Amino acid sequence: MNSRHVFTLASVLAVGAFVFGYQGRGPGAGKEDKEVAAVRAVIEAQQAAWNRGDIEGFMAGYANEETTTFVSGDTVTRGWQTVLDRYRKNYDSRAKMGTLTFSELDFKPLSPFYIMATGRWQLAREADAPRGRFTLIFRRTAGGWRVVHDHTSSA
Amino acid sequence: MNSRHVFTLASVLAVGAFVFGYQGRGPGAGKEDKEVAAVRAVIEAQQAAWNRGDIEGFMAGYANEETTTFVSGDTVTRGWQTVLDRYRKNYDSRAKMGTLTFSELDFKPLSPFYIMATGRWQLAREADAPRGRFTLIFRRTAGGWRVVHDHTSSA
Repeated sequence: MNSRHVFTLASVLAVGAFVFGYQGRGPGAGKEDKEVAAVRAVIEAQQAAWNRGDIEGFMAGYANEETTTFVSGDTVTRGWQTVLDRYRKNYDSRAKMGTLTFSELDFKPLSPFYIMATGRWQLAREADAPRGRFTLIFRRTAGGWRVVHDHTSSA
Repeated sequence: MNSRHVFTLASVLAVGAFVFGYQGRGPGAGKEDKEVAAVRAVIEAQQAAWNRGDIEGFMAGYANEETTTFVSGDTVTRGWQTVLDRYRKNYDSRAKMGTLTFSELDFKPLSPFYIMATGRWQLAREADAPRGRFTLIFRRTAGGWRVVHDHTSSA
């Protein structure tokens, strides 16, 4: 077999792996549940970090890459450092950070490398109680599952 | 080989297919470009349908499934029909639909089955000019690429 044949065979088997492991409840399903649990743990760690005033800890859930994107309103923020800077600027006091609660979490594995997580966010603060929804795309990285794309909207 | 071994082999080869076909510029890259072009065509068809006042035509870009989700603000709308009803209610006149322009389109293939598309939307209307961003998750279906998840935010 030349490399094109190997690739074609790999593609065919990849389709099989998806159909049985990611679109049904085949032998890969247990592994899928484990990966979803890992993604859920990252989100819970982010909430815990936020609620101790630790924005860097919160940011540990995002892939430390220049292609990491955060979308909100009509604005796109690109790159891990830029996203961190945005959070630092918008939440420059413990009062502004308030208490964050994620709820209605839902997970959709898209491939062995990507899981979509959706949910609701609420901030309890002295002055107000902003809330909204998020769609997160997690990618499997060497260091574990990390957010590579975050689209957050507000009520 | 029993079925578990077949699955394990398929998984290993699936990883190979991704690495070469979806995370790099290997022999699968041409196919990837073709799929991205197909997704772009769906988005362009949606814009054209909207701008002739054809909400059903616009909705043809979404998977006609009960799991199709549309997220905006703090609201989740589930199911193709419910999403259509929402559009019909929010845009119940040609004036409210205005002229839709998509721009800054970006595509990220996540697997042979899923492509993420992001971009900017603007509505030119008599009374106002709302705008914002969207993140779309497209799935390969028997009928072509269709939106299974839409997260749209407004400025």
